[in-house]
Amino acid sequence: MLDLNIFDKLKRGPQVVVLKDAAVIAGFAGIGSGDKVVEAGSGSGFLSIYLANAVGKDGKVYSYEWREDFHKLAAKNVAKVGMEAIVELKQKSIFDGIEEENVDAVILDLADSEKAVPHAFNALREGGVLVGFHPNVEQIKKFTDACKAAGFSESKVIETIVRDWLIRDRGSRPANTGLMHTGFLSFTVKPALKPMV
Amino acid sequence: MLDLNIFDKLKRGPQVVVLKDAAVIAGFAGIGSGDKVVEAGSGSGFLSIYLANAVGKDGKVYSYEWREDFHKLAAKNVAKVGMEAIVELKQKSIFDGIEEENVDAVILDLADSEKAVPHAFNALREGGVLVGFHPNVEQIKKFTDACKAAGFSESKVIETIVRDWLIRDRGSRPANTGLMHTGFLSFTVKPALKPMV
Amino acid sequence: MLDLNIFDKLKRGPQVVVLKDAAVIAGFAGIGSGDKVVEAGSGSGFLSIYLANAVGKDGKVYSYEWREDFHKLAAKNVAKVGMEAIVELKQKSIFDGIEEENVDAVILDLADSEKAVPHAFNALREGGVLVGFHPNVEQIKKFTDACKAAGFSESKVIETIVRDWLIRDRGSRPANTGLMHTGFLSFTVKPALKPMV
Amino acid sequence: MLDLNIFDKLKRGPQVVVLKDAAVIAGFAGIGSGDKVVEAGSGSGFLSIYLANAVGKDGKVYSYEWREDFHKLAAKNVAKVGMEAIVELKQKSIFDGIEEENVDAVILDLADSEKAVPHAFNALREGGVLVGFHPNVEQIKKFTDACKAAGFSESKVIETIVRDWLIRDRGSRPANTGLMHTGFLSFTVKPALKPMV
Repeated sequence: MLDLNIFDKLKRGPQVVVLKDAAVIAGFAGIGSGDKVVEAGSGSGFLSIYLANAVGKDGKVYSYEWREDFHKLAAKNVAKVGMEAIVELKQKSIFDGIEEENVDAVILDLADSEKAVPHAFNALREGGVLVGFHPNVEQIKKFTDACKAAGFSESKVIETIVRDWLIRDRGSRPANTGLMHTGFLSFTVKPALKPMV
Repeated sequence: MLDLNIFDKLKRGPQVVVLKDAAVIAGFAGIGSGDKVVEAGSGSGFLSIYLANAVGKDGKVYSYEWREDFHKLAAKNVAKVGMEAIVELKQKSIFDGIEEENVDAVILDLADSEKAVPHAFNALREGGVLVGFHPNVEQIKKFTDACKAAGFSESKVIETIVRDWLIRDRGSRPANTGLMHTGFLSFTVKPALKPMV
Repeated sequence: MLDLNIFDKLKRGPQVVVLKDAAVIAGFAGIGSGDKVVEAGSGSGFLSIYLANAVGKDGKVYSYEWREDFHKLAAKNVAKVGMEAIVELKQKSIFDGIEEENVDAVILDLADSEKAVPHAFNALREGGVLVGFHPNVEQIKKFTDACKAAGFSESKVIETIVRDWLIRDRGSRPANTGLMHTGFLSFTVKPALKPMV
Repeated sequence: MLDLNIFDKLKRGPQVVVLKDAAVIAGFAGIGSGDKVVEAGSGSGFLSIYLANAVGKDGKVYSYEWREDFHKLAAKNVAKVGMEAIVELKQKSIFDGIEEENVDAVILDLADSEKAVPHAFNALREGGVLVGFHPNVEQIKKFTDACKAAGFSESKVIETIVRDWLIRDRGSRPANTGLMHTGFLSFTVKPALKPMV
C-alpha cells in the first residue's frame, strides 16, 4: 500500500497531478492490479508513482517525457519510493509514437494532447481506455473531437471537486477555502473490432 | 482491468457505493496491488468488486455482512465477475470482531460504524488506514470521536462531487442535474508504536 | 416583498431564470430599489418579475422579446402578480437597438447576446452594469470579447451552485440530487469617461 | 444602484457577510424595494448596507448589535455610503427582544441565534421570512428546531458555492482556488393565522 505522505517528501517541478485526480483517473478507467499503462508527460512523476502502486509488480507503467529536466526529476522521485521495477521512464516525445502495444490504458496530461490520440488508439488493446487531463474547456473539445476521429467511443467528461471538512466539538463545517479546479477528465474506450462476415 | 460496464449488469439490493466514492476511498487510502483489505457491510458487493480489481490476485478483500439476503446478493455478484478467489464474503457482523490481522485497510460503510472502530484498530497493521463512509454529518462526528478514542491519528474528512460535462459542437457545459451528495469519507491512520526505552 | 411561491403558480413557456441566478444577477450587479433595468429576452417573465420586486415603484424594468408567444406569456405572468406598472414589456428584438438611455443595468439572456453588447453600452449610464447569462462556455468567450471591444471594463465571470440540505433528527446531509448547472454569469461595467484636459 | 466596489473601501472588523450570501439571503427571502427588515448582529455593517440598497428609501433596515465596537464600526461604514436614513443601527442585544413589529424579514447571523427565534416570530408579519446564517451544521439543527417550536413553517436550508471563471484567449477554466464555504442559509415563513370559526 502506498503511504501517501510520500508525496510530501518528493521534489516538485512542473504542476503535479493531485491525489483526487489520480484516484479518479484510475477509478473511472478501471485500472487495477496487473495492468499495463502508458502516460505522458512524466512531470514530477507523481502520477507514475500513484499508478505503479495501483498496477503493482504484475503491471507496468510506461511514462513519456521529452524534457530532460522533468524526465530526470521523475526518475529521481520514482527511485526514492522504490518503484523503478514497475515504472519505465522514457525521455521521448509521445507525439513521435507509443512503442508499447496492447496496453490497458493511456493517460495524456500534456498540452496539445489531441495530437497523441491516434498513437493512443494504436497502442491500446480493444476495450482499453484513453484518459485526457485538461485544465481548459477548449482543450477538451479538441481532444474529444480527435478521439472521435480516431475511432474511439463517445467520451465521458467529468470534473471532480473534493471538499475538506472540519469535524469539531465546537461545530462541523467545510473548510473555508480550497481547490476549486485542477482539470477536466475525459474517458473514452477503444471499441472491439466488429468481426467481418 | 475492470470493465466498469459490469456494474450495470449486476443486481442491486441495498444502496451501492458509487464509482466516485470507490475511487476516492482506494485512492486516498493508498490501496493498491497486493493489499489486504477488510470491509463492511457487503451490500450488493460493488465495493468488494472494485477493491478486488485494485488489490489483484496477490491481495485479498474480506467483506462482512450479517444480513443473509445481502450476503447472498454480494456473493452472486462477485461470482458473476469471477472475483471469488480474491473476495472472501463472510456472513458475520463486524460488530462481533474482525478475524483478520495485520490488514492494510479497513472500510466501514454501515450504520453505527463507530462501534466497529476498536475492532478495526486491532485488525490493522501499523500505518494501516481506516476509512468511514457516512451519509450524515452527525455520523462523522461519532466516528471520528471513536477513532480518536481508539488511538487513531487525526481524521481527514472529505466529500467528493463529480460533475458530468457535455462537450458538443453547439457548446460545452456541465450537465444540468446530477448527484449532489452520496456520503462523507473519513480517513485515519493507525500510528506506529513508539518503541519503549 | 415578493412571495416566491408565486413562481410556482405562473405558466412556464421557455426555460426560466431560476431564483439562484436571479438573486445573484441582482446582487452582483448591485441592482436595488429605484433602479432602471433593461433585459432581454422576456421569456416567461420570471426575471422581469424578480427585478420588478427589486427595483420597486421608483424603478423600472424594460423587457425585450421578439417572439409574440413569449411576449404574451410574460405579459400574462407580469399581470398576474400585479407588476404591470413597473415592468414594460416590449415585443421588439434587442438586436435592433435599446430605446432607453441612462439605464443602471442591462441583462442579456438570449442566444447571440454578443450582438446586443454595443446597444447595451449605449443604453447604460457610466458605471452601469451589463450582465450576460450563458449556458455554454463558448458563449461567454464571444460575449466577453464583445464587451471588451465595446469599451466595457474587464468581465467578472462566475457560476453559482446552490445545494439543498436536509436537517433532520435522524441526521443532516445535502440532498442526493439537484441542479448542477444552469448558466454562467458575466458582469462588466461601463467605465466613466475620462475628462479631457 | 449600489457600487459594489464600495465594500473594498470600508473598514472590516468581524467576519463580513460576503456578496454571494447577501444576494441569496435577499433573493430567497424575496426582499425588495420598500421592505422593512431586521437583522442581527450588525458586524461591520456590510449586510446592512446591502439590504439598504435593496429596500431603498421606502424601506427600512433595523440592525441590532450589542458590542459597542462593532456597533460603532457599522455606523461608520453605513455613514460612509450615505445610508443613515435607511439603516437604523441599535446597540442592543436581539436576545432582549425586537422592538419593531410587522416586519417583512428578520435575518439572524450571530451565535446562539436560536434564542432569538421567538422574538423574530413576534416581530414578523404573517408571511414574513426568517433567515438564519450559520457556519456549522450543528447550528442549523438547533435553529430549525427552534423555528419549528416557535410556529414557523418547515425550513428550507441551502448552501451557495460561487466559482470564479477565467475566460481567456489561451483557454477558459475555473479559478484554481476559491471560497469553498462561508455558511448555511435557512429560510422559514411565519404562517398566516387560521381564521377562527
